[in-house]
Amino acid sequence: MAQHNAFYAQSGGVTAVINASACGVIEACRQHSDRIGKVYAGHNGIIGALTEDLIDTSQESEEAIAALRHTPGGAFGSCRYKLKDIDTHRAQYERLIEVFKTHDIRYFFYNGGGDSADTCLKVSQLSETMGYPITAIHVPKTVDNDLPITDNSPGFGSVAKYIATSTLEASLDIASMCATSTKVFVLEVMGRHAGWIAAAGALAGEGEGEPPHLVIFPEIPFDRAKAMARIDECVKQYGYCVIVVSEGARYADGSFLADSGTVDAFGHRQLGGVAPALANMVREDLGHKYHWAVADYLQRAARHLASRTDVEQAYAVGQQAVEMALAGQNARMPAIIRVNDNPYEWRIESAPLAEVANQEKFMPREYIREDGFGITDACRRYLSPLIQGEDFPPFENGLPKVAKLKLARVERKLPDFQV
Amino acid sequence: MAQHNAFYAQSGGVTAVINASACGVIEACRQHSDRIGKVYAGHNGIIGALTEDLIDTSQESEEAIAALRHTPGGAFGSCRYKLKDIDTHRAQYERLIEVFKTHDIRYFFYNGGGDSADTCLKVSQLSETMGYPITAIHVPKTVDNDLPITDNSPGFGSVAKYIATSTLEASLDIASMCATSTKVFVLEVMGRHAGWIAAAGALAGEGEGEPPHLVIFPEIPFDRAKAMARIDECVKQYGYCVIVVSEGARYADGSFLADSGTVDAFGHRQLGGVAPALANMVREDLGHKYHWAVADYLQRAARHLASRTDVEQAYAVGQQAVEMALAGQNARMPAIIRVNDNPYEWRIESAPLAEVANQEKFMPREYIREDGFGITDACRRYLSPLIQGEDFPPFENGLPKVAKLKLARVERKLPDFQV
Repeated sequence: MAQHNAFYAQSGGVTAVINASACGVIEACRQHSDRIGKVYAGHNGIIGALTEDLIDTSQESEEAIAALRHTPGGAFGSCRYKLKDIDTHRAQYERLIEVFKTHDIRYFFYNGGGDSADTCLKVSQLSETMGYPITAIHVPKTVDNDLPITDNSPGFGSVAKYIATSTLEASLDIASMCATSTKVFVLEVMGRHAGWIAAAGALAGEGEGEPPHLVIFPEIPFDRAKAMARIDECVKQYGYCVIVVSEGARYADGSFLADSGTVDAFGHRQLGGVAPALANMVREDLGHKYHWAVADYLQRAARHLASRTDVEQAYAVGQQAVEMALAGQNARMPAIIRVNDNPYEWRIESAPLAEVANQEKFMPREYIREDGFGITDACRRYLSPLIQGEDFPPFENGLPKVAKLKLARVERKLPDFQV
Repeated sequence: MAQHNAFYAQSGGVTAVINASACGVIEACRQHSDRIGKVYAGHNGIIGALTEDLIDTSQESEEAIAALRHTPGGAFGSCRYKLKDIDTHRAQYERLIEVFKTHDIRYFFYNGGGDSADTCLKVSQLSETMGYPITAIHVPKTVDNDLPITDNSPGFGSVAKYIATSTLEASLDIASMCATSTKVFVLEVMGRHAGWIAAAGALAGEGEGEPPHLVIFPEIPFDRAKAMARIDECVKQYGYCVIVVSEGARYADGSFLADSGTVDAFGHRQLGGVAPALANMVREDLGHKYHWAVADYLQRAARHLASRTDVEQAYAVGQQAVEMALAGQNARMPAIIRVNDNPYEWRIESAPLAEVANQEKFMPREYIREDGFGITDACRRYLSPLIQGEDFPPFENGLPKVAKLKLARVERKLPDFQV
């Protein structure tokens, strides 16, 4: 069979395990050296393709590629950049084809979420629309867990494990001190539109009164009076109250809690987090002593506490993407299909990219407890398998060891291109 | 030899390893069952002694006590409560003696920081001032690392490892995305007066340009113009800037950065964190896209990422406290003495409690880089050994397994007492 090169790139917010997918793609390509020549990684996602800024991964040792499996962040650089429509921005697509042709790239692997799937879909159409023979496969990734079809999105299981563990640990801290100190603790987690990560916080406790006592979802309109009443009830009943709140929590009118309505000395609207905003409400309405934390990037970078299930799935979707491409599939995504909850069994199937791009999967109402402040057993059955197993990275000198790549650039052959 | 009971309690902010000290105390007492009868743990620190709210640890299995070694938080409840002076609050001391007499308590182990050492010191003086034969030993603990004499404070090494690791991981995330997204990341860490925890963040990088690019200490007056200039320089030079800032960062006039001067809709002073305050300055002065995180309790509860060195020292000070008490010492604290930096060697020596109580150990100026935004090699030599080694807890169902104690109460024999 003819041998051609592959392009791989990372797109959108990175995760603790996106590099495990990179590892899966590159190792699978290396196993198929009869058909796939080199893997060129785009520096900063699709921008690397547009600007001909390509990293020659064949220069990396086996050990360096294997180390990607336990390295957080995006090793080749990621981007927030979506290809425009081909009708209005034809020059971009012509440039892509020029770069692909120049470097004999016929396989395109794009590792990202819903927005990135749209970019991958557009590239997959280059065969049809512009006659360039490309096989494009999307490798799913997003901590938000909002991709459709796939059982979960690689990256989510690890952030879920991190948030559940952090909630458990911090709750033990607050329980210890509540008699004379902090009574309300608020942990802000990611998820601007979908409450999956907040829901994972609920895995920290199960029985009556076990923290977290409230989970606040973006899917449920926030009712200040109702929330404050519940918080006060918990403090009275259990001595303390632990709250996990999604950054996307909002009022019935759609406005975010995080938009606290305060202005700074210059009249600028204060961009507060939702955790301090909620903590302020506790102070104003209840007067309880509080603390708050905002996990922000710590949660999606926490490879030290990755879920083994998640790492395995992240690797598998990368590896399967290559198999699908070699099987001649185009405009597809390897999706994780759940076969069984407990014990968790899953396999990978090929899903049509057109059904993935630009879609968002929200928490179904039946996963949220009737009072809106917790998860149901069905949700627990869904989430629990995703945090199973540990996959600690190697440590060196007290810190996680990460991949050190050469990131050797492929020689540029084309004129500059402005993105 | 005569057999008497022991009292053990936890005081002040808890840590990831304070229960490892509890484990050390209780296991050592059990090994000396000829001289020590039962260990009664005070529920919520000294308050448990005052209110006769005692937990009979002899009811706990060997397994449960061993599990304390990997359980964060304070298993017996902690408190923020300092004994008043004996001259003005004699009734409190009489009550303590009454409780000790009633339950045949002759050994007093108090596990806390500088303020708690003061309480322990006052109890140690009961022999002299009120004729009750008590042997009081302070078991050091504080994430702030601000206790004098001891090489470090148990609890600090684990928070240092957590912050260094989190800084490393989050930095990889930001480096991936900075071309088209976040350029400045601010991580707020604990340490209201002393910058030890912030300094630990600097362990994440070492070479020129390696993150974190700025560490902001409470010991160095904050100069907004200078800090912003440095941040901007980093963004220009490295593409991004990672900042670790101590919650206690303050201006030359002593006012905190966290007091952002903003007011909410009700005219209340906004209690912002220092991270959002600093992020706001970046927005106002530089206009770079930013993100911020506030680790808060997550950092001091993160037993899942404890330093093995810290766990071993926390256990050892607990165990040695018992040996010291049995050797007839009173008003002492087991202090960690550094014998060698690399390889790290340490031993425990007995230190006079009077020299520990109410003292704070700040970062010496020679540990802070001349420009005020980083640590020196001397600081690195000091800090590095403290984060060495991992001691992952057992996991069950995807989450850390924690000690489940019965917390059986000792029967009350005395009238109520109000604290």
